[in-house]
Amino acid sequence: MTGTTPDERPYETLRWEVDGDGILTLTLDRPDALNSFTVTMARELVAAFGRASADDDVAAVVVTGAGRAFCAGMDLSAEGNVFGLDEDAHPTPEDLRDRLHEPRIADGVRDTGGTVSLAIHDCAKPVIAAINGPAVGIGATMTLPMDVRLASTEARIGFVFGRLGIVPEACSTWYLPRIVGVSRALEWTYAADVLTAAEAHEGGLVRSLHAPEELLDAAYGLARRFTTHRSRVGVAMTRRLMYAGLGSAHPLDAHRADSLAMWHASVGDGKEGVAAFREKRSPEFTGRASEAPELFPG
Amino acid sequence: MTGTTPDERPYETLRWEVDGDGILTLTLDRPDALNSFTVTMARELVAAFGRASADDDVAAVVVTGAGRAFCAGMDLSAEGNVFGLDEDAHPTPEDLRDRLHEPRIADGVRDTGGTVSLAIHDCAKPVIAAINGPAVGIGATMTLPMDVRLASTEARIGFVFGRLGIVPEACSTWYLPRIVGVSRALEWTYAADVLTAAEAHEGGLVRSLHAPEELLDAAYGLARRFTTHRSRVGVAMTRRLMYAGLGSAHPLDAHRADSLAMWHASVGDGKEGVAAFREKRSPEFTGRASEAPELFPG
Amino acid sequence: MTGTTPDERPYETLRWEVDGDGILTLTLDRPDALNSFTVTMARELVAAFGRASADDDVAAVVVTGAGRAFCAGMDLSAEGNVFGLDEDAHPTPEDLRDRLHEPRIADGVRDTGGTVSLAIHDCAKPVIAAINGPAVGIGATMTLPMDVRLASTEARIGFVFGRLGIVPEACSTWYLPRIVGVSRALEWTYAADVLTAAEAHEGGLVRSLHAPEELLDAAYGLARRFTTHRSRVGVAMTRRLMYAGLGSAHPLDAHRADSLAMWHASVGDGKEGVAAFREKRSPEFTGRASEAPELFPG
Repeated sequence: MTGTTPDERPYETLRWEVDGDGILTLTLDRPDALNSFTVTMARELVAAFGRASADDDVAAVVVTGAGRAFCAGMDLSAEGNVFGLDEDAHPTPEDLRDRLHEPRIADGVRDTGGTVSLAIHDCAKPVIAAINGPAVGIGATMTLPMDVRLASTEARIGFVFGRLGIVPEACSTWYLPRIVGVSRALEWTYAADVLTAAEAHEGGLVRSLHAPEELLDAAYGLARRFTTHRSRVGVAMTRRLMYAGLGSAHPLDAHRADSLAMWHASVGDGKEGVAAFREKRSPEFTGRASEAPELFPG
Repeated sequence: MTGTTPDERPYETLRWEVDGDGILTLTLDRPDALNSFTVTMARELVAAFGRASADDDVAAVVVTGAGRAFCAGMDLSAEGNVFGLDEDAHPTPEDLRDRLHEPRIADGVRDTGGTVSLAIHDCAKPVIAAINGPAVGIGATMTLPMDVRLASTEARIGFVFGRLGIVPEACSTWYLPRIVGVSRALEWTYAADVLTAAEAHEGGLVRSLHAPEELLDAAYGLARRFTTHRSRVGVAMTRRLMYAGLGSAHPLDAHRADSLAMWHASVGDGKEGVAAFREKRSPEFTGRASEAPELFPG
Repeated sequence: MTGTTPDERPYETLRWEVDGDGILTLTLDRPDALNSFTVTMARELVAAFGRASADDDVAAVVVTGAGRAFCAGMDLSAEGNVFGLDEDAHPTPEDLRDRLHEPRIADGVRDTGGTVSLAIHDCAKPVIAAINGPAVGIGATMTLPMDVRLASTEARIGFVFGRLGIVPEACSTWYLPRIVGVSRALEWTYAADVLTAAEAHEGGLVRSLHAPEELLDAAYGLARRFTTHRSRVGVAMTRRLMYAGLGSAHPLDAHRADSLAMWHASVGDGKEGVAAFREKRSPEFTGRASEAPELFPG
């Protein structure tokens, strides 16, 4: 990519590169370990998605892996407790509900993949997964809160938790049945097989398949369709409305939030959008994603 | 249509015609303006769906557009504030949650498309969209709370809000991700393209495609399958149960409501249905949609 | 099936057979009446799924029908009140919400099919429907809370409630729109047609079609993929997390529950799973489904 900002390298496990169109490429960057997932990578992904969400120079995010893998799952080569959970914690359902932010729970029991998923969920920018190779375990589930998944024909995707005696994590039980249907989600997690790219595509998990050397360009092309002549505050509100709408009980809940969003747009970039339409020219939007109003009451 | 009731013409922007089988055709009727959406049309659609829901002579509703368009979206040719929202309102999330019916909010901030969607959602009759041509913006989103979408091969459907710097409205963030999946819903609203009929069909938005001159007959044929020898109170309860079930958290919520509905059916049209089945004859149901009980506690 | 436990025959309407791999076959066993559904069958299914859930010798459940039908629906040949509901009860929404377990409601108004669906929903084991022939009415809706539906090419599936003047029951308004989409769910229940196996497959209701004589083997093959070298407590937690995730409002709800499940796995079968992976051998899990922790606060 020409014209990208210099890699600031504040991360051990990631590369952060923003091109001239505001497309951020976040690269999982432990190629010698097939970009396997560590507690450090979790912490850095949470930070990077928070930064991408807040940084008005970022218009959209493409996530991919360095080398031949996307992410081969939790790094099981680590010594000791690979899960990073406190074995003495003995948490209860109430702990997770009521004491989520107490150090004993936050640092001892919370699934690290889930903290990443929640950071992606909260991001104010479109997020595109460019799955360039094996995506296994957390490497598969971390793509679910991303908006669109593109894959190389060489990709392999596996919800393999069942092989390890553990459970699907990273909030995947919220996303996966909504993306591929509950029946397929259960079959895939019970059977715990590694899917071919074609199987993942056929099952609705992946939007489109691409030759390996064309994958990133396809992702960037899509990202540009999401950002060129688009209101960044409008896109930010759209992302939040859509996931909230998907989770809410009644269309009235959506009506409340989208009325509010529409009002904000109508006194903001919507004025320019209507003017440009009438004048048959491209709009010049100035709203910033960071100005998106709070749409949901606390 | 022969045998329709005379058009009472209480509407400026709609035609209301009921045939001898109780099939109401609601036609968006501003053909010179491609049936574009105005505040008057919103008010009339809310009234018409309320009337269709309450009127026991209406068994099902088919919605279509006069002339070559279905609905070309918000009428942007209007002078001044096309959004119809009060620019001085400065609403908060709490306003929309707690003060929804106060005039300042109800008349100043509520998205007009959303009021139409909620009226369609509350209708006690099956609603079929016959998308005969371009359906753009609110012209697209108003079809989402309709039960089934049929389209002409000439139809074009666009969730184009992003081009105008605004957001998807009319409760579309509740319906669209449930109809086409959250990933496609986000791609379509981010990219804000106008889809061909074939793309809309392939994406699951539209049930079936028809030659332009065959579209209405296909819609009427489907409407008759939904109404001939069917209990109108049974159909009304089915519609409400399905949307409530789709939004509820646990099957137990559905069990509560469908137990109640089944009890009412068992002392009503269900008696005739079982008798007719045993006697190997067509049932003669007498229940009226307006008699459907309240299924959900306040 | 060779090597099954002797049929204990505690049931009038079911056969219960567990093979050496822990695969339970529950056979609806009233072949002379096309396995039509009675109040006795409802009571026995609730008991059998409770037993299958609690019995650590059962790893997975396959449900099929004896003879040429799966289940031809409610037994309408019975004398008198076929619905089994108290005609004098006059229940209110509040009765079903607040007084669900009072005898007047529990015995007089609760939909019997729904009690079966809730028992299947609560089962801690994977449940596979092997639909060997006609599955109509409750014969169709009882398969919806099962995880995967396989069908014979001879199967016919009908949500025919509308023909009888009644409503879809057995919590089907929760499951069906999530499995096949709300638009198809409404079309199928409004039209109340009997679908061919191919139509059910195309619509996403059925996972795969099989020659009649190969159906059960396909179901057993799938069941073995869900159970061989799998942690039974892990599978039990996965099933509960998935359905809860599907119904919850926000990924944070899933995060709370899957953090807790992951913690339990990490001090249980997950240790063996990781050890086996490192040692490149098959795991030997010892966790029992009955040890699955409570994941959701009361």
